[in-house]
Amino acid sequence: MPTKIRLNLDAARRSALKISTMVLLGSALCWGQAGGECKPSSLNIPGAKHPCVYPDGRAAFRLVAPDAQKVQLRVGKNFDLVKGEDGAWTVTTTPLVVGFHYYTFVVDGATVADPATRTFFGSGWDNSGIEIPEPADVDYYLPKDVPHGQVSQRWYLSKVTGKWRRCYVYTPPGYESGKSRYPVLYLMHGWGENEQGWHTQGHADLILDNLIAGRKAVPMIIVMDNLNAVKPGEDGAIFSARWLWPQPPPQPQPVAASAPGGRPAAPPARLGLAGFTGATFTEMMLTDLVPMIERTYRVRPGRENRAMAGLSMGGMQTFLTTLSNLDKFAYIGGFSGSTGGRGGTFDPKTSNNGVFADAAAFNKKVKVLFLGIGSAEGPGTKNFSEALAKAGISNVFFESPGTAHEWLTWRRCLNDFAPRLFR
Amino acid sequence: MPTKIRLNLDAARRSALKISTMVLLGSALCWGQAGGECKPSSLNIPGAKHPCVYPDGRAAFRLVAPDAQKVQLRVGKNFDLVKGEDGAWTVTTTPLVVGFHYYTFVVDGATVADPATRTFFGSGWDNSGIEIPEPADVDYYLPKDVPHGQVSQRWYLSKVTGKWRRCYVYTPPGYESGKSRYPVLYLMHGWGENEQGWHTQGHADLILDNLIAGRKAVPMIIVMDNLNAVKPGEDGAIFSARWLWPQPPPQPQPVAASAPGGRPAAPPARLGLAGFTGATFTEMMLTDLVPMIERTYRVRPGRENRAMAGLSMGGMQTFLTTLSNLDKFAYIGGFSGSTGGRGGTFDPKTSNNGVFADAAAFNKKVKVLFLGIGSAEGPGTKNFSEALAKAGISNVFFESPGTAHEWLTWRRCLNDFAPRLFR
Repeated sequence: MPTKIRLNLDAARRSALKISTMVLLGSALCWGQAGGECKPSSLNIPGAKHPCVYPDGRAAFRLVAPDAQKVQLRVGKNFDLVKGEDGAWTVTTTPLVVGFHYYTFVVDGATVADPATRTFFGSGWDNSGIEIPEPADVDYYLPKDVPHGQVSQRWYLSKVTGKWRRCYVYTPPGYESGKSRYPVLYLMHGWGENEQGWHTQGHADLILDNLIAGRKAVPMIIVMDNLNAVKPGEDGAIFSARWLWPQPPPQPQPVAASAPGGRPAAPPARLGLAGFTGATFTEMMLTDLVPMIERTYRVRPGRENRAMAGLSMGGMQTFLTTLSNLDKFAYIGGFSGSTGGRGGTFDPKTSNNGVFADAAAFNKKVKVLFLGIGSAEGPGTKNFSEALAKAGISNVFFESPGTAHEWLTWRRCLNDFAPRLFR
Repeated sequence: MPTKIRLNLDAARRSALKISTMVLLGSALCWGQAGGECKPSSLNIPGAKHPCVYPDGRAAFRLVAPDAQKVQLRVGKNFDLVKGEDGAWTVTTTPLVVGFHYYTFVVDGATVADPATRTFFGSGWDNSGIEIPEPADVDYYLPKDVPHGQVSQRWYLSKVTGKWRRCYVYTPPGYESGKSRYPVLYLMHGWGENEQGWHTQGHADLILDNLIAGRKAVPMIIVMDNLNAVKPGEDGAIFSARWLWPQPPPQPQPVAASAPGGRPAAPPARLGLAGFTGATFTEMMLTDLVPMIERTYRVRPGRENRAMAGLSMGGMQTFLTTLSNLDKFAYIGGFSGSTGGRGGTFDPKTSNNGVFADAAAFNKKVKVLFLGIGSAEGPGTKNFSEALAKAGISNVFFESPGTAHEWLTWRRCLNDFAPRLFR
C-alpha cells in the first residue's frame, strides 16, 4: 500500500516540523504576543468563544467565577487563571499537543468541567474536552461528502451480568439497502471511558466512512461496547471515578507525568488495575454480546471475519480476550495497551499461557497482530513488538508521531489498523 | 382504547396521592428525620453515591470543594449547601417533583455541572441531571424484555445551512430484518436542547419499544433532529447559552417562577424568542431532512404517513412547520408548546394565516391535533384547546398530573400521543 505509507511519512514530517516549531516558539517568543487569531475549539457549546486555540497550539480559557479565590486549569500541566475586573478568570496556555485533550477546572478546590464545552466521558465522569487541530489538510476523521454509514445504539440483556447493557454498532454505507454480510471489528475504549468514546472522541464512524470511500478498507461492522462488566456481587470500583468524591483529606486529580495531554496515563495505583483480569467482560462478550450481534446483523461467520482491538485498558482487554480464544478471533489490535502493560516482562515460552510458544502456529492463526503507540508514550510497546519479532511472532508496529496517551494517537491507530483487516 | 384510559386514570390517582402526601409531609415532618434509604439517582456516574433520592422525593447532594466560600444548588428552587469538616459541601432538599430535572451548582459564583452525574444538553450546555423516580410500577420508559428497535446517528449535508448536520433515527423492532415500509414521526426537542434529548432525557426509543410490544402503537420510524438551523450570516444566538459567559456584571441563571422543576419555562426575554419564526428550520427540514430520510429508509409515502411533534420551542416549531404545510403532514403534536405561546391570543379566522378558518376542511386534513401540558404549567394550553374546540377544530387535550415544564411531562405526552398515530 504505497499510498498509505507516503501519507504516514507526510504526517510524520508535519508533526516533526510542528514540534520543532513549538520548541522554537517556546524559547523565543512571548506567548501573549504571538500572532494569529484564537479560534473557538470545535468541541465548544454553540456560541461559546472560549476555549479558543491559536495557530501555534496555545489555548485561551475563560470561566466566570466572580467570588472565587483560586481557579486552576488542568490540561496535563496545571495553569493558574487570573481574575479580571469583569469577574471572569482567564489564562492562555503554552502550546498544547495536537489532538483531543480532556481537561478540568478546579474552582476553590472543586474539580468541575468547563461549562463552555460539550462533555466527554473519560476518567469515569463527564469532563470537558478541547481539540487542538491537526494541520488543515488532515481530514481523515472529519465528515466529508462521501457515503456515510451509521452508528446505532443497541440495548441487550446480559445473562452474565444480569443487567441491560448498551453498545453502539457502526454499519457501513449500503448496509441497510443491501443484502451483503460483513466482517466485524469489536473496538474497545480505555479506562474510565465508555461505549460512547469511539464514535464521540474517536470518530471511528467517520474514519471508516472515509477509508471505505477511498477503497482503503473493506466495509465492516464495528461494535463498540463497555468494558464495565461485573457480575452481581463483584466489585466494580475499578470503573468508577472514586477520586471525585474522596474521603478526607481531599486529593487532587491524579495526573501521571507521562501523560502530557491531561489524561492519566493509567489509573492511579489505588484503583488496583494490577488485579484486572477482564474475565467477566470476556465471558459476557462471548456469551451475550457476540451472539446478539451475529443474531441481529448480517455478519460473516467464523474467526477470520472477527477482529478485536482496543485502546489502553481496552487493549489489555483485547489481548486477554483474544489470546485465550484464538479459535474465535484472527485479528488483534492494541492501541497504547496490550498484554502485561506497556513495559511488562515478556517470555515467549510462558507469557499468556504459552500462546506465543509455537510462533509458526501463532502466525498461521493470527492474520494481524497490531501494536500502536504515541511517540510520547515511552518505549514499552516498541520493546514488546521487538521481543515478539525476536521470538518469531509477526506483528505490525505503528507509532503516531508527536502524540501522547490520547485520542489522536488512537484515531491514527484505527486509521492504520482498519485497512489491514479482512483481506 | 379502554385499557389506556384506565392507565391514565391510575397515573392521575397516583400523582394526586403523591402530591397530597408531599404536602402533608412538608407541613408535618422534619425533613432531616424522615425515614427511608437515600438511593443514588439513576443518572449518576458509576459508583457515585450522591446525588441520592429518598422515597419521599427529597434529594441529597454533595460536592467536594474544600476552599469554597459558598456553594449553592439550583434545581428550580435554590438551596445553600453546608460545608463539613471533610471539605465536602452537602444539602438535602425539600421533596422534588417526580421526573427528570436539570440542575447546577454555583461554586463561588461559577455556574457548573455536578461532576457526579452524567451530563445532559439543556439550556444550551451540558448540565447535570437527576431523576426523581415515579412509583415502582411505572415502567413505560424503562428497558424491558421486549423486542428493541434501535437509535441511529445519521450525518447529512444541508444545502440550506451549508453545514453537516446530525440527526438520530429510531427504527422499530424488525426493521432491519424485514422489508416493510413505515410511517415517520418527526420529533423535536425544546429550547437549549439538541438532537440527543429525546432518546437520552426522553427515552423515546424505550417508550416506543414498549408501546409496540403491547400493540398500543403501530411500528413507526422516529426522526430526532436539531432546531438549531441557521443560514450563513444568520444570527444563531437564540440557540446559545449566552448567560453562561455574561459580560459585566455577571448575572444569575434565569429561572422562571412558573418552572418549579429547575428549568427555564421559556428562554429569557433578551434571547428574543418573540422574533423566532422557525423559517430556516422549516426550509431545511423540507429541503434536506425529509428527502434524506425518505431516500435512506423504507418509508411509507404521503402526508398520512407523516407526523410532527415537539416539546416547548419544538412544539412551536411543529406548529409553524406543519400549519404552513398541511399538504405534507396529517398528525400534529405540541407538548408544552404550540402556536403563539401557551397564553397567546387566538383568533380562529386569522391566526396562522387563517388555517383554522374552515374547521371542517381542517378536521378532514388533520387526523390528530394533540395538545399536551403538565398540570403545573398553567392554563394556557387548556384555554387554547378549548378555544380551538369552540371554533370547531377537533383536538386532543392531554394533561400530565403533577408535573411541570420538564421531561416527565413530555415522556407522558409521547406515550399518549404515539398510540394515536397512523391508524
